[in-house]
Amino acid sequence: MSKDFDLLTLGEILLRLSPPDNERIDRGDLFYKQVGGAELNVASGVSLLGLRTGIISKLPQNSLGRYVKNRVRFFGVSDDYLTYDAADDQRLGIYYYENGAYPRKPSVVYDRDYTSIHKINLNDYDASLFSSARIFHTTGIMLALGEHTRATTIEMIKRFKERGTLISFDVNFRGNLWTGEEARKTIEEILPFVDIFFCSEDTAKLTFKKNGALTDMMKEFSDEYNISVVASTQRIVHSPKIHDFGSVIYDAEKDYYYTEDPYKSIDVVDRIGSGDAYISGVLYGLLSTNMDCEKALQYGNATGSVKNTIPGDMPSSTLDEIERIIKEHQNTGIKLEMDR
Amino acid sequence: MSKDFDLLTLGEILLRLSPPDNERIDRGDLFYKQVGGAELNVASGVSLLGLRTGIISKLPQNSLGRYVKNRVRFFGVSDDYLTYDAADDQRLGIYYYENGAYPRKPSVVYDRDYTSIHKINLNDYDASLFSSARIFHTTGIMLALGEHTRATTIEMIKRFKERGTLISFDVNFRGNLWTGEEARKTIEEILPFVDIFFCSEDTAKLTFKKNGALTDMMKEFSDEYNISVVASTQRIVHSPKIHDFGSVIYDAEKDYYYTEDPYKSIDVVDRIGSGDAYISGVLYGLLSTNMDCEKALQYGNATGSVKNTIPGDMPSSTLDEIERIIKEHQNTGIKLEMDR
Amino acid sequence: MSKDFDLLTLGEILLRLSPPDNERIDRGDLFYKQVGGAELNVASGVSLLGLRTGIISKLPQNSLGRYVKNRVRFFGVSDDYLTYDAADDQRLGIYYYENGAYPRKPSVVYDRDYTSIHKINLNDYDASLFSSARIFHTTGIMLALGEHTRATTIEMIKRFKERGTLISFDVNFRGNLWTGEEARKTIEEILPFVDIFFCSEDTAKLTFKKNGALTDMMKEFSDEYNISVVASTQRIVHSPKIHDFGSVIYDAEKDYYYTEDPYKSIDVVDRIGSGDAYISGVLYGLLSTNMDCEKALQYGNATGSVKNTIPGDMPSSTLDEIERIIKEHQNTGIKLEMDR
Amino acid sequence: MSKDFDLLTLGEILLRLSPPDNERIDRGDLFYKQVGGAELNVASGVSLLGLRTGIISKLPQNSLGRYVKNRVRFFGVSDDYLTYDAADDQRLGIYYYENGAYPRKPSVVYDRDYTSIHKINLNDYDASLFSSARIFHTTGIMLALGEHTRATTIEMIKRFKERGTLISFDVNFRGNLWTGEEARKTIEEILPFVDIFFCSEDTAKLTFKKNGALTDMMKEFSDEYNISVVASTQRIVHSPKIHDFGSVIYDAEKDYYYTEDPYKSIDVVDRIGSGDAYISGVLYGLLSTNMDCEKALQYGNATGSVKNTIPGDMPSSTLDEIERIIKEHQNTGIKLEMDR
Amino acid sequence: MSKDFDLLTLGEILLRLSPPDNERIDRGDLFYKQVGGAELNVASGVSLLGLRTGIISKLPQNSLGRYVKNRVRFFGVSDDYLTYDAADDQRLGIYYYENGAYPRKPSVVYDRDYTSIHKINLNDYDASLFSSARIFHTTGIMLALGEHTRATTIEMIKRFKERGTLISFDVNFRGNLWTGEEARKTIEEILPFVDIFFCSEDTAKLTFKKNGALTDMMKEFSDEYNISVVASTQRIVHSPKIHDFGSVIYDAEKDYYYTEDPYKSIDVVDRIGSGDAYISGVLYGLLSTNMDCEKALQYGNATGSVKNTIPGDMPSSTLDEIERIIKEHQNTGIKLEMDR
Amino acid sequence: MSKDFDLLTLGEILLRLSPPDNERIDRGDLFYKQVGGAELNVASGVSLLGLRTGIISKLPQNSLGRYVKNRVRFFGVSDDYLTYDAADDQRLGIYYYENGAYPRKPSVVYDRDYTSIHKINLNDYDASLFSSARIFHTTGIMLALGEHTRATTIEMIKRFKERGTLISFDVNFRGNLWTGEEARKTIEEILPFVDIFFCSEDTAKLTFKKNGALTDMMKEFSDEYNISVVASTQRIVHSPKIHDFGSVIYDAEKDYYYTEDPYKSIDVVDRIGSGDAYISGVLYGLLSTNMDCEKALQYGNATGSVKNTIPGDMPSSTLDEIERIIKEHQNTGIKLEMDR
Repeated sequence: MSKDFDLLTLGEILLRLSPPDNERIDRGDLFYKQVGGAELNVASGVSLLGLRTGIISKLPQNSLGRYVKNRVRFFGVSDDYLTYDAADDQRLGIYYYENGAYPRKPSVVYDRDYTSIHKINLNDYDASLFSSARIFHTTGIMLALGEHTRATTIEMIKRFKERGTLISFDVNFRGNLWTGEEARKTIEEILPFVDIFFCSEDTAKLTFKKNGALTDMMKEFSDEYNISVVASTQRIVHSPKIHDFGSVIYDAEKDYYYTEDPYKSIDVVDRIGSGDAYISGVLYGLLSTNMDCEKALQYGNATGSVKNTIPGDMPSSTLDEIERIIKEHQNTGIKLEMDR
Repeated sequence: MSKDFDLLTLGEILLRLSPPDNERIDRGDLFYKQVGGAELNVASGVSLLGLRTGIISKLPQNSLGRYVKNRVRFFGVSDDYLTYDAADDQRLGIYYYENGAYPRKPSVVYDRDYTSIHKINLNDYDASLFSSARIFHTTGIMLALGEHTRATTIEMIKRFKERGTLISFDVNFRGNLWTGEEARKTIEEILPFVDIFFCSEDTAKLTFKKNGALTDMMKEFSDEYNISVVASTQRIVHSPKIHDFGSVIYDAEKDYYYTEDPYKSIDVVDRIGSGDAYISGVLYGLLSTNMDCEKALQYGNATGSVKNTIPGDMPSSTLDEIERIIKEHQNTGIKLEMDR
Repeated sequence: MSKDFDLLTLGEILLRLSPPDNERIDRGDLFYKQVGGAELNVASGVSLLGLRTGIISKLPQNSLGRYVKNRVRFFGVSDDYLTYDAADDQRLGIYYYENGAYPRKPSVVYDRDYTSIHKINLNDYDASLFSSARIFHTTGIMLALGEHTRATTIEMIKRFKERGTLISFDVNFRGNLWTGEEARKTIEEILPFVDIFFCSEDTAKLTFKKNGALTDMMKEFSDEYNISVVASTQRIVHSPKIHDFGSVIYDAEKDYYYTEDPYKSIDVVDRIGSGDAYISGVLYGLLSTNMDCEKALQYGNATGSVKNTIPGDMPSSTLDEIERIIKEHQNTGIKLEMDR
Repeated sequence: MSKDFDLLTLGEILLRLSPPDNERIDRGDLFYKQVGGAELNVASGVSLLGLRTGIISKLPQNSLGRYVKNRVRFFGVSDDYLTYDAADDQRLGIYYYENGAYPRKPSVVYDRDYTSIHKINLNDYDASLFSSARIFHTTGIMLALGEHTRATTIEMIKRFKERGTLISFDVNFRGNLWTGEEARKTIEEILPFVDIFFCSEDTAKLTFKKNGALTDMMKEFSDEYNISVVASTQRIVHSPKIHDFGSVIYDAEKDYYYTEDPYKSIDVVDRIGSGDAYISGVLYGLLSTNMDCEKALQYGNATGSVKNTIPGDMPSSTLDEIERIIKEHQNTGIKLEMDR
Repeated sequence: MSKDFDLLTLGEILLRLSPPDNERIDRGDLFYKQVGGAELNVASGVSLLGLRTGIISKLPQNSLGRYVKNRVRFFGVSDDYLTYDAADDQRLGIYYYENGAYPRKPSVVYDRDYTSIHKINLNDYDASLFSSARIFHTTGIMLALGEHTRATTIEMIKRFKERGTLISFDVNFRGNLWTGEEARKTIEEILPFVDIFFCSEDTAKLTFKKNGALTDMMKEFSDEYNISVVASTQRIVHSPKIHDFGSVIYDAEKDYYYTEDPYKSIDVVDRIGSGDAYISGVLYGLLSTNMDCEKALQYGNATGSVKNTIPGDMPSSTLDEIERIIKEHQNTGIKLEMDR
Repeated sequence: MSKDFDLLTLGEILLRLSPPDNERIDRGDLFYKQVGGAELNVASGVSLLGLRTGIISKLPQNSLGRYVKNRVRFFGVSDDYLTYDAADDQRLGIYYYENGAYPRKPSVVYDRDYTSIHKINLNDYDASLFSSARIFHTTGIMLALGEHTRATTIEMIKRFKERGTLISFDVNFRGNLWTGEEARKTIEEILPFVDIFFCSEDTAKLTFKKNGALTDMMKEFSDEYNISVVASTQRIVHSPKIHDFGSVIYDAEKDYYYTEDPYKSIDVVDRIGSGDAYISGVLYGLLSTNMDCEKALQYGNATGSVKNTIPGDMPSSTLDEIERIIKEHQNTGIKLEMDR
């Protein structure tokens, strides 16, 4: 089996259960059944755009684990590095998601304690794993879940880095998993290994205690930890159903900031995973153009924006669709109403 | 069984049948099956916020009546005062509801003639009923349905009043049930018993032939009939899918009008019952704060606004959710996008 | 508009609401929305087999009436003789149907009082109506609903008969609409006009107080009232999901009884309307063969049997399908598993 | 059978398959199953408004063809002129439709090659067909599908014209069926027969190489080919979910242009078929008023606008609804929120 | 609030997720969302038959806990003794259920470790609880879940017994929760407190190491532990869709065994909870007749049999339905096909 | 990318559209959307049992082709050898499937002319393909579709055979694609290359004009063409919902026939693809045991039988499930009712 991946990600995969339309979790007779997880979302997005990706994770060895494996494959991601937990207390994490409508916010209930990801084991993987990918990506969630996932994640980052893999990291701060202080300390420990860093303005300020303009804070991260690319999304939430979405990317080599007009008045169908889709667009852009941050920005903004219109966590856009959207976004002339 | 209710309401409960999404009544293969009714909606809203409520009504003694009873309980309302009609011509009233989308308005078809509520019987209830609640609430619909329901409702208002119960009344004028003139005459007969009065600006003008500013008309009602609290909602319909919602409340004791910025650009999922939800918020506010009209206004506006985002007649918000929404509405600083 | 129909029927059309699969009326969130009615079912069945049919009925002039009209047309039946009730108390009758599963029986809740059919008016129809059809068919339900529908139905039977139309009548006794004694008296009044008579063995005994073998009772009816064709279905209910179905037809002219092996172990999906489908097969057989009762029996048994496998009241079989089923039923050799 | 139609249209009828809500064609487990086709949409719209219409088309003689026939009838259109293809390679054309949400456009996948419409045969129709309608309507699609449908369509136009039928024609240019140059040449061949012509501003410019103001181009068509009525819709697409819709109509006899304020901020549920609905409104207006173009414009704009709120290709508005919408659109005073 | 219950049960309530029809857990896009749990099922069944019941349990204080509370009320069971877990690691247990079809068995995946029931606390309940019910019922599951639930359950049994409550206990042996030996030891510790004992023949042999005829083993239990009533169901599984169901009950006072013909060829729609429904029928019979075991047997067999035809864990039969089924079961004469 | 497959199959992949439950193709609003195709079904079945498989096919390069690719991956089959057709007349074949219920048969409507499989091109595949699999499997359908697919298939068989691949072939005779005589001639041309041959008794007689006992005909094929394994399924159709299923396998090396008791009274949910599932079980058995025909028979019978209970074309059983079913089938002692 080939070990040659453009991107490998490490993360927990969750069952997502959500009531239809604007129904609520505490009523109704149906849940839509999907899979999600920040790191899977990124791997799937890059795969849809045409590169080869896989995910490193651990699943329960039962019909729910099989369901996840099947969906991983459906979304174009390799299941070669999935391992299975056959213990009696095996379990798949779950999150329940309910759409919002102003003045009601979207809401999430997590049920992800004691899950099989906590038994992920470095010994299950051959050393060759760490030389099989161009980029390795993970997020702060793996650091926050528990001590074992934290240690395993840090060790994987180091081993991938040693073999010359680019390390991509998304802070993805979740206040219900750890405190800002814990997050800051842990992430500062891994930042020296990071090449591509995703961090929002709020997180830079609140978690990393930085000040000043966003661009200055981005440069500061890059200078302090020798990070090649720092990217930060900018989202304006007009209502749960209408957002604007754009971003800024700092290219350390050129010492240059890229940005473009945001996508405005996006029709939000499902906001979950749009940040991950953004990362998938950026990583695709970097991988397919030899690190051209301007292209990465365009792919990231388009991929992140359009994800908001797709039900479920996962993006679903092919390269062809993304390029049509970018062209349309830049175009100021006549626009067709429909793709036929 | 305890007879101690914070709120009892009297009203007809209907089966609501509606096609999914924007499908029409005259096409398609499915109806969503729900229950509704102005007075049940109010009782359910107050119960969700944490108080103890019940509904006085009569249902057919068949599987449809059982369905309604089960839903009443599901929505947190006591079924202790439901009675059942076992006659051959027993029937449950129905209304068919279709969503709108500009330029198509929402539409309703009623099928509520000859229903079991017309056989509601004072003799089925023990005298203790009338001393079992802090507030008794009903609406103009019960007065409009027919002579028997009118007489029974007026008699119940009087008996509850005699035992020191606060009487809450919502005009809820429906042109297809009676004329404005009939409504005015009948309601003026019961206004001397009313403590909390809900009446819209249009109804004050068109039905009660009042003039001038809304606040003046509200005070006039209060002065003329010695009403403690008069509340009036203000809704702006931008399209069937976008409304603004606010209200004014007049506190007779303080001779003071309360209002606040309306909720703007509400994402309307299902507009039915949002006026009833408003009443439930106001009554909750009055009951839980010893008649603080400012709190009542805030609860009313939040509960009414958020109901617009909930499918079906019934509200579904807990106190916790309403308080988060109020805080968010008053807050001018940073706002979180999602409840996690 | 053409007045040339092979069959016209007169009857009430109902909205049918049923929960999916084996769900119950008193639970769940969905109703399937269909139309039904003994006389519409017959007209639709004959139309599907290739003849031209219409239904005489009265509907409310609202979106529910329009829904019924659209479905009538969908099922191949002319809406030329539908009239509409624009009065305030217009209403469409409803019945709720729940599937059975042993030891739970199928169950029906009727809500058909005060419906628009009670305002059907002979004056709405041109005299030409009564010379526009080869067969006129109606059932005991129209006689049982009320005095006005009874009188109108009897008058229509007489007028059609006068113009040389064959009169077809199905007793369709419903104990919840009238007593056996009322039924007997009323039906005996119209039997002298009837040419084709459908009556079950139980009804012959319990309602008409006849005795002896089924065939003897059938002949008795024929002799007494000069009826050309008497047909009686024979159903064995092994469980709500497995029935046998067959029939006997008496041909007065030949003084001969036709029967054949029943269809055994039918997979019952929806039993409602299978008796009506049987009648449609018999009438088709008589109309298409110049009153060949043997053919009528074969068409009737096949059409009635296969209806049990179709969801909803209405049959859905084309002539081609019915002829394949008859051939298969008679065949004792090799049988194909699938129609490709 | 009566041959008296207000409108006959000629066109292909397609099966439309679309995933629910914002789901995508390349995912999910369900397709909604509907029928559509520009010419059927027009016939259905005119029928709903109260006139008698039919469609001339050819369908496969299998269960899919039967499904289409049933739906045609359901939508109020006569199936008298449907013919059936019993050949082995019979097939029904299909199109797959996916909703859009900004920045994702709606998209369509066609699968309409080799379909039974290509075998439509003039010899299957009696000469009386051509004198049975007040208006005959078809579109550029029939000219574009292939040489046989083109020749047949042109021949039908001529035969209808000869019998004094008004000819209505909608360019409906589809770049995936033919080139602009082919379209121009072919359509110029039939324009001398056309009485009512529907052509958008873009098509006038890009296909017919006209210049200048829309009104000037409309008049040019009228002058050059002696066309009585030229109509052109004007749509502004703010997002896939919000459009404005209006039109201009040129009345050659009066040499006058009619227009009115467009419908603004329409809540688009399903945009497909709204242009056809517009045509149905215009044709209804012309037919019901002895060619009053102002009325035609009002009916056209209202019918086209409201179609955007209806799922599926087909309009669903009765005359009553359209007239309420027109009145509301013209009204500047108080507006009711709901139709009860 | 009244403390007067006919029955209180103690047990864990689970979220049940199941794919529709015969779809599998590892495929598809939907789960039906229901609640279940042996002890809730029993309480609900007794309540449906007309007595007053409640459940003692602990739920997470989030929207899933609220969903369960709402369903508990919907099914007619009091939520007075539900307590809530507000801790960070609150969780609701889940089980996934998939229907069988020969040769595929039904299958269940449990995810019930670490749930909020493990924090149920005797101190949350007032002493009056233990004198508020005629019967207290629980099952072996509560003893098997863990040490804390075991100790709490045993203590509750003792306290209820002290106040003169009848103790009902169902072994409900689950090999995936504990070993037979653990079960035997623990249950023998509580049997001296038990008045009504439910135990299958297999469990009597395999877990309690008894021998001989079922009736002998039942008497042995009764003699050894002074148990008034011992009941044992007898199910024959012909296929996942066809079962027979009957039982034997031993009445210690009369030293008499009751049995009757089993219900044969039950159409199994959902087998889960039919054993619990049986218990609810038996307990209803005992409570409503002053411990008449023959009546209890008839109610138990009918209630258990018909539950197999109901989707979900919970029974749904009213007393009226159960009595019709019993009458039908005993009747050897004419049977009606349908309840109208 | 690895070229090491246990099994490669060659075949057309179709979109399958089917109405829910017992609804008909010519009614209703929904189609379930699935993929199917004899050769994909086999590849998927073998993959689910744990081996590595792929499919060689050609798909349209549009969203339908992407949907199929995603499902192929979901079902565990490699998409490495899928090629895409970007031509204007690209199309995916479709079949419509409707369930049966006695006396109504299941029925299929094909729409598979002019599809992209007809453009499959040997030149798109590297020579290494033909040495990448242990078994190559295809069916008579590829020979019947047209001359190009026939020639390509025969050439592929030869190239695989040359590289030492075992050739597996299923006659899968379809009377609507070719005549028996054409089939016989063509298949006799490839039989000399075949190692594993699947042929039903009917086909042996009707198509290949053989006589006598099934076992004799099987041996004759083996002798005449030097075939190692000949397998023949035996199905008894009691009704569309109840089948028996078994088979006979002839092992040429041992000159021995294997058979076992058939699976009786299978609850048929979806019969399509159960023959293909049988083949997947047989091939798995041969591949995993070094050609042990007895094991192959057991795996084949179990896999084929249980497929009948799975909705859609594709099997869904893991090795674990199949082995439990085999054990249960052989077991004559106690059987558990449920898998927990």
